[in-house]
Amino acid sequence: MASKKQSINIGIVGLGIAGASMIPAIIAHPHVNLAAAATRNQERLDKFANDYHAKTYYTIDELCRDPEIDAVYIATPTELHTEHVRIAAEAKKHIIVEKPLAVSLEDAESMIELAEKNGVHLIVGHSHSFEPPIQKMKEIIDSGKLGRVLMIHNWYYNDWIYRPRTPEELKTDLGGGVTYRQGSHQFDIIRLLGGGEVRSIRAATAISDPERPTEGNHSVFLEFENGIAATAVYNGYDHFHTTELTFNIGEGGPLSNSGVYAQARRTIKATNSPQDEVALKVEAGYGGSRSKNYQEAEKHHPFFGLTIVSCEKGDIRQSPDGLIVYGEEEKYTVQIPMEETGRINVINEIYKAVIKGVKPIHDGRWARANLEVCIKAIQSSKERKELYLNYQVPVKEPVENNI
Amino acid sequence: MASKKQSINIGIVGLGIAGASMIPAIIAHPHVNLAAAATRNQERLDKFANDYHAKTYYTIDELCRDPEIDAVYIATPTELHTEHVRIAAEAKKHIIVEKPLAVSLEDAESMIELAEKNGVHLIVGHSHSFEPPIQKMKEIIDSGKLGRVLMIHNWYYNDWIYRPRTPEELKTDLGGGVTYRQGSHQFDIIRLLGGGEVRSIRAATAISDPERPTEGNHSVFLEFENGIAATAVYNGYDHFHTTELTFNIGEGGPLSNSGVYAQARRTIKATNSPQDEVALKVEAGYGGSRSKNYQEAEKHHPFFGLTIVSCEKGDIRQSPDGLIVYGEEEKYTVQIPMEETGRINVINEIYKAVIKGVKPIHDGRWARANLEVCIKAIQSSKERKELYLNYQVPVKEPVENNI
Repeated sequence: MASKKQSINIGIVGLGIAGASMIPAIIAHPHVNLAAAATRNQERLDKFANDYHAKTYYTIDELCRDPEIDAVYIATPTELHTEHVRIAAEAKKHIIVEKPLAVSLEDAESMIELAEKNGVHLIVGHSHSFEPPIQKMKEIIDSGKLGRVLMIHNWYYNDWIYRPRTPEELKTDLGGGVTYRQGSHQFDIIRLLGGGEVRSIRAATAISDPERPTEGNHSVFLEFENGIAATAVYNGYDHFHTTELTFNIGEGGPLSNSGVYAQARRTIKATNSPQDEVALKVEAGYGGSRSKNYQEAEKHHPFFGLTIVSCEKGDIRQSPDGLIVYGEEEKYTVQIPMEETGRINVINEIYKAVIKGVKPIHDGRWARANLEVCIKAIQSSKERKELYLNYQVPVKEPVENNI
Repeated sequence: MASKKQSINIGIVGLGIAGASMIPAIIAHPHVNLAAAATRNQERLDKFANDYHAKTYYTIDELCRDPEIDAVYIATPTELHTEHVRIAAEAKKHIIVEKPLAVSLEDAESMIELAEKNGVHLIVGHSHSFEPPIQKMKEIIDSGKLGRVLMIHNWYYNDWIYRPRTPEELKTDLGGGVTYRQGSHQFDIIRLLGGGEVRSIRAATAISDPERPTEGNHSVFLEFENGIAATAVYNGYDHFHTTELTFNIGEGGPLSNSGVYAQARRTIKATNSPQDEVALKVEAGYGGSRSKNYQEAEKHHPFFGLTIVSCEKGDIRQSPDGLIVYGEEEKYTVQIPMEETGRINVINEIYKAVIKGVKPIHDGRWARANLEVCIKAIQSSKERKELYLNYQVPVKEPVENNI
């Protein structure tokens, strides 16, 4: 699928938080152009046209009829992914779809088939294994200098359950709750570092606030085919925060609300209705009053909780500016340039796939494997037993196809 | 088993690190007397007689023939416990035996039976659930103010594998390695906080340094009958240390070797023979040149790694001076007096059992349940599957029997 083109034109579908946060990455890439956006929100379209001098459409169908668009970034709600991937694939557009790919393995399968049938790449992201510190951990593991990997742990305590949510984010059946929404990041990180092929899972998930009736915490044990063990622990109830263990740096860089205890829970408990809550969330999207200035350089790479990798000859965890490696003889830090970001890596993965013919790691099968772990985590908890996995895939080695 | 006596006389058997470290606790208790010690090391006996004006014996048999002794603290190597418990029980002495009680469930069973047949208390300790911060966590859980417990996690990374060891401590069959020796503390903490009755376990243990061929790290998932989930993660290979996450405070209070990376591994790798290594360890026992001054007050309670308890309405972890409680409305600290220690709690448990008729929590059945978790952790790893437990017991409520 290598091409004689040297750059690709991307159109964004959906300008909520996910859509807005990908814009700077597209702009930053020298061979990718921010060419268009589609949303039914006229105000956002006007602002987008004005900010980026790019084309605007009301619907994904219209955007996909534009022959100048090579690839689309689908940042619409999860339940629309199957339909939107179908439209894009049939229009022969390469696809980045926001995670989670789907809520069911059947939907994931149909999207994988559609992309393959139409000869387009399907990349799922952004997810946290794209982040430079996780990529650098993998690079160190792959170098072999620390020996075999023994254990990989990711522990994340935060306020996820009490951030402003759309109703489906709080419904497990629609892919809501921390196990689907955040476990998918944890398993993505752990699978990238552990080789990809999880053999079995034993998990306990819990719904602990009846007013937000979806999984809010979990404890998950994974074992890979290759013998590597892992745990993923999550607690989204806004009590203890693991930022206390990660240099006060969170997922979006340095904490903005430090100093106010349980701010997220207080705010949500004071919100009157689901509509008011959605309004709060909408304001965090593109052009909204609570939107982040994504153009502003983050001072630190994000910490998706505390990740500790143990190898025979050393451990690795994140430092404020990169990684700390605890080797046999010395403990040292590895700096990671702040210009690298996870979302730039997403854009680079689609660029390399389309232009260089490099098969993407984070393709539909990779995302389906992450989804399978989420589904089995909830099932393992309900059945109170260990379960085995069926759709796991190894991490692909990136090979350029210079035709 | 309540008595008209108001105090008890204790004799110590074995004056290694364990024996020496119990002395200050015995001395500190107002109703317990340090009455005697037994060891074959004449130098230690002389020093002991001189330091404490107490009686000395060469053997446990001689000590147990002393009618003034009410209870013995058996701090001999694990493989001698069965024989020493038999001697003490048949002499009708109450017993504290250093953990681990035994290496096999059969040996544990025989000791439990011997104690019961002879009408003496059998307490196993010191183990870390005796420590005041863990006891205080239990008190907060039992108060119900944080609601139901959801998850309990204990994660400990340190240099255990490279501290000076006797040969049996590095032989799994003899109860060596981190899963038997240190997992027993983790499971003891987790079981005390979770209610005691573990339903199932899934674990991965590993032997990662062929020069120290016993378990050096593990990842363990536990689920209790009551649905509480837990993980215990341990890495003893002297790379990353969890003291970095626990205010630089370790198991023995503040770190003494901070600043020197991988000091334990360097020292051991430079030691020529197992004999030299044992000599290093002996020097840390009673009267040795490397022995700690146990009389000196510790500035902090010990951190056995990072323990985080999540309840419906809050999380708990240790602070330098007690606990941090992350509640619904506020985060606050709970001070714990430094005069309280885990070993004083051990001595108090035997005192209350003998004088007040309070059934001890940490009895033979409790210790057998901890041992069962250790054994099943290693078995689960070998068989790569979840296993169910058969010898678990609930945490006893302390009730005074005022006859």
